[in-house]
Amino acid sequence: MNTFGTIFKISVFGESHGKSLGIVIDNCPPGIKISENDFTEDIKRRKGGTKGTTPRVEEDIPEFLSGIYNGYTTGSPISIIFNNNNIKSSDYTSLKNTPRPGHVDFTAEKKYNGYADPRGSGHFSGRLTLPIVAAGVIAKKICGKIKFQAALIEAGGSGDIQKAINHAIENQDSIGGIIECKINKLPVGLGEPYFNSVESLISQLVFSIPAIKAIEFGSGFKSATMFGSEHNDAFISTDGKTLTNHSGGINGGLTNGNELIFRVAVKPASSISKTQETLNMATGKTEKINISGRHDVCIALRVPVIIEAVAAIVLADLIMIDNAPFKNLK
Amino acid sequence: MNTFGTIFKISVFGESHGKSLGIVIDNCPPGIKISENDFTEDIKRRKGGTKGTTPRVEEDIPEFLSGIYNGYTTGSPISIIFNNNNIKSSDYTSLKNTPRPGHVDFTAEKKYNGYADPRGSGHFSGRLTLPIVAAGVIAKKICGKIKFQAALIEAGGSGDIQKAINHAIENQDSIGGIIECKINKLPVGLGEPYFNSVESLISQLVFSIPAIKAIEFGSGFKSATMFGSEHNDAFISTDGKTLTNHSGGINGGLTNGNELIFRVAVKPASSISKTQETLNMATGKTEKINISGRHDVCIALRVPVIIEAVAAIVLADLIMIDNAPFKNLK
Amino acid sequence: MNTFGTIFKISVFGESHGKSLGIVIDNCPPGIKISENDFTEDIKRRKGGTKGTTPRVEEDIPEFLSGIYNGYTTGSPISIIFNNNNIKSSDYTSLKNTPRPGHVDFTAEKKYNGYADPRGSGHFSGRLTLPIVAAGVIAKKICGKIKFQAALIEAGGSGDIQKAINHAIENQDSIGGIIECKINKLPVGLGEPYFNSVESLISQLVFSIPAIKAIEFGSGFKSATMFGSEHNDAFISTDGKTLTNHSGGINGGLTNGNELIFRVAVKPASSISKTQETLNMATGKTEKINISGRHDVCIALRVPVIIEAVAAIVLADLIMIDNAPFKNLK
Amino acid sequence: MNTFGTIFKISVFGESHGKSLGIVIDNCPPGIKISENDFTEDIKRRKGGTKGTTPRVEEDIPEFLSGIYNGYTTGSPISIIFNNNNIKSSDYTSLKNTPRPGHVDFTAEKKYNGYADPRGSGHFSGRLTLPIVAAGVIAKKICGKIKFQAALIEAGGSGDIQKAINHAIENQDSIGGIIECKINKLPVGLGEPYFNSVESLISQLVFSIPAIKAIEFGSGFKSATMFGSEHNDAFISTDGKTLTNHSGGINGGLTNGNELIFRVAVKPASSISKTQETLNMATGKTEKINISGRHDVCIALRVPVIIEAVAAIVLADLIMIDNAPFKNLK
Repeated sequence: MNTFGTIFKISVFGESHGKSLGIVIDNCPPGIKISENDFTEDIKRRKGGTKGTTPRVEEDIPEFLSGIYNGYTTGSPISIIFNNNNIKSSDYTSLKNTPRPGHVDFTAEKKYNGYADPRGSGHFSGRLTLPIVAAGVIAKKICGKIKFQAALIEAGGSGDIQKAINHAIENQDSIGGIIECKINKLPVGLGEPYFNSVESLISQLVFSIPAIKAIEFGSGFKSATMFGSEHNDAFISTDGKTLTNHSGGINGGLTNGNELIFRVAVKPASSISKTQETLNMATGKTEKINISGRHDVCIALRVPVIIEAVAAIVLADLIMIDNAPFKNLK
Repeated sequence: MNTFGTIFKISVFGESHGKSLGIVIDNCPPGIKISENDFTEDIKRRKGGTKGTTPRVEEDIPEFLSGIYNGYTTGSPISIIFNNNNIKSSDYTSLKNTPRPGHVDFTAEKKYNGYADPRGSGHFSGRLTLPIVAAGVIAKKICGKIKFQAALIEAGGSGDIQKAINHAIENQDSIGGIIECKINKLPVGLGEPYFNSVESLISQLVFSIPAIKAIEFGSGFKSATMFGSEHNDAFISTDGKTLTNHSGGINGGLTNGNELIFRVAVKPASSISKTQETLNMATGKTEKINISGRHDVCIALRVPVIIEAVAAIVLADLIMIDNAPFKNLK
Repeated sequence: MNTFGTIFKISVFGESHGKSLGIVIDNCPPGIKISENDFTEDIKRRKGGTKGTTPRVEEDIPEFLSGIYNGYTTGSPISIIFNNNNIKSSDYTSLKNTPRPGHVDFTAEKKYNGYADPRGSGHFSGRLTLPIVAAGVIAKKICGKIKFQAALIEAGGSGDIQKAINHAIENQDSIGGIIECKINKLPVGLGEPYFNSVESLISQLVFSIPAIKAIEFGSGFKSATMFGSEHNDAFISTDGKTLTNHSGGINGGLTNGNELIFRVAVKPASSISKTQETLNMATGKTEKINISGRHDVCIALRVPVIIEAVAAIVLADLIMIDNAPFKNLK
Repeated sequence: MNTFGTIFKISVFGESHGKSLGIVIDNCPPGIKISENDFTEDIKRRKGGTKGTTPRVEEDIPEFLSGIYNGYTTGSPISIIFNNNNIKSSDYTSLKNTPRPGHVDFTAEKKYNGYADPRGSGHFSGRLTLPIVAAGVIAKKICGKIKFQAALIEAGGSGDIQKAINHAIENQDSIGGIIECKINKLPVGLGEPYFNSVESLISQLVFSIPAIKAIEFGSGFKSATMFGSEHNDAFISTDGKTLTNHSGGINGGLTNGNELIFRVAVKPASSISKTQETLNMATGKTEKINISGRHDVCIALRVPVIIEAVAAIVLADLIMIDNAPFKNLK
């Protein structure tokens, strides 16, 4: 269930404190120029490293195991791994009895009968978004001239992001944020009816990113307050451009050639430096816990490039699905 | 691409004004008691028929073609169809040149090279949610004691739903609404990491319902404004019950045994009685259009049962996926 | 698990004595001309009706529920059903205790906890190949100029097919046969490495046809007795034509542009008029049984068109998969 | 398209002369004890190293990147890689013009527009069966008490395998062989109707192994020469045991509790030391070629353990699929 895609298919693996994490990308078209440098910028954007992000420093250098030859994709599966170097595995046995509030500790322990890797949330760690960003780099190449731009537009409920972060640091707490993603130069007609609609697939992948709790396309929740006569976007040119864009660039689940726009809510990271209370599942008594380790005060700072990546992965697949039926009929 | 599910797999087909529409449900467990009566209530809830919903009246009687024998599911694919009887197909050729704002007319025409069935939005019609509701009835049976309750909590931006509808009728316009869905008596640990997380799959199916533009789980967009110390839900009992439920019953993409709660935004229906302007794609000139036919002033009235259906479909599949790995190891 | 295909996706449903059986075909390209007449020949070939085939006579008229508009495919799912009219359901309760040798009675009863539809082997009936043949008709259209020719080349171990059939009729017994399928005018490079190789997918679908017990490509079992220097097919022209065709038109799982050739073995039908012995599963004692009903003395007579259909379904899907990656890179 | 399985899902990647090759195994149940030693025997069986197999010596030590913690599977994706150490990449550019007969050189060059990795057949190399064998080791553990036994029963058309090999070595040629696989202690009812029948899935995976050209279940091709009254296997005990086993342990695509038995034909390896002729695709003229490198005189010697692996992979998945539907109905 760690696999996504119909043609452009990705499979992620790895854990926060395991040897390596990575991704296999199947059915990437042959002949795409790829070098390590192509990954530098997006990996750096995800890394954080600025005030408000974790001080865990990993090199995050992609290692290509397969699918690339003489600097070009071959058409065979591309496998990319990242080694975990800067690991400080403390004692995780206490998590079995005193699961951290807001974390997956309790549910993963139950689901996997006690065998889940608990170190740094194991497979559920946000670190798994690193190979997803790498796949996004390749997906963006397939998307050609399509432009992806995601940005944090609000943190801790405020547009003054730096101030909100400073405030949270002072409080040994964490804050969330809102990310807006705009995608331009899309062709008309990408997406498939129903379960593979553009919104369906983007939201499926967006919610696979830890900490995302909401998504809205176009006018989103505000749509629910509008009249149809306001919400309907009037066509203004024969290529489908519309005067307004309440639909967010999607009609009937298909791209309509206008800007595809959506916003997501990132919750505050569950790990905070502040002392918290939790329940000891063995004794049934409340205990105080301090979550040691290196925390992201505002994890949302690192999410925009991940949002771009998942959007590009979805669109790369939809482009190929859209290509599939037509060619051989002539 | 009209297929969803790993084990409990559904495939929808049909058009608004075609002969029949339906659904094939694969891998339904054998031995589930099924009769036509089981479908009556949910189909009625979807039908509307009250003020604010379309006057198109269809009997919507499910016809079982396969998979049921002597009143029980057999384990073989269940096929259910609904005939379209009350069809008034007017002349749809004009839509090719003057696509309706907010509709799929323009994008479908482009995507399918002019061959899409244009009658009543063809395969993109909200009428396809009827077989989805039917599949939901069966999925709810698989979900056993799990309880699904979705309700319209706001329409046209107001809690006074009836008043908002009356206002819209007076204006020959349409309005949207907010639906809240609560699911209780869930076991701990349903859902799979990443692409098959509970949020991923529910949102994938929710956005396959026409007119949905946003979804949020738990505190949703409000999460982005909270501190981690506020948002983290404190455990209060050893079965995982928490004091608050900002996470909406999901941690790490897995159910945590608390109420699963989410809200969706339904946009106002694009078809309105009011005269609108659109572009004639052949001439490039603006024209006035009146959309005849039978419109839903508040389509959101009919959506709660569809939301329950898709949530049940997702959970039925996740229950079976969760069952799969464990049995034969002993 | 009744679904096959990546892009050109089919889902079968129905039972031998149920109301209707059918197929849903997803992602058929739009703009393909389709009429009922297109199905006549292949359905007739499957029907048998000659000496050696069952006297059960069904009209087998395809009913199109969706996906076709004004005589052309729309790009939306095509649903085709066939009604079962000529049903003589006798008492099937005895099968629970005295399962027929060579039939699925015993295994289906166990697998589905006693809920399987036992009438005429229910969902496991060879009658389900009818909708598969219908899907094959559409798949052949997608395959364009590719030519499919399957024929029965041997029955009951002999090339004199009619004589072998007469002999079996006299003995109230059944016989099997060998079918050879030749496919020509294939492009180079269809098929995917490993699990979606041409041989993998053709054999997967071929073995979903009841009564098939073996398949061999090119020189097949004889390959195992040859030297590499004999078996290697020497290239004789720059388009890849080879002097011999021991590989059966496939290298590395991909079509090489030569004739794709394979043979399958059809076992004798399990239902015979002759009295047989079986075990009463309740008493543990041996009993004599007579299988009433209408039997195929040589079921293999009806299989060639089904083999063509499944080969066409595989190739239609592989054509679309092969189309998918390339277009948008330019 | 390098992914197989519904629940127990595998994805292979890598090339013969690339950095590493490997496999990702998703949805392996948690709590299975795994150590490097578990892989030793099966990897050794595949390696060959005896007379008649390639002198290329690789250590073939599995490196576990994820999914295993404290010696047990965690339920998260298991990633296993093998490094390619003993690589002697000669100049492969000549293959573009003078493709080797019987190899994938020509078809891969066409399919991937000239970008395929040509070194040692790249991704199409038989070396990719190494990670498949590794996945088989884990699959066998899931299969519990089920016993897999595959053996080479004939080579070069003769039962005296060693003599046939010696003869081939003298001739600088290669030979094929027949492998028989027997699987015992199977439960009744594994397999799904139609496209996921036991024969369908086993043959799909078997044909993904390079060099396999034929498969037959039970009496296989001989079935086509038998009467139904001979072929039908008579039940002799209430657990479904039969007197004969012409069906090979499968009825209606489902295991019937008897021995599952099938045979496959392995063609002679295409690479031989003998001088051959091929066509220069640039000049259109015939040329002599000598294929340097390290060849398997009888590749079939190494295949039995791969056949066991793919059978175990199929059955592990079918066991989990069979588990899925039942549990939560009570």
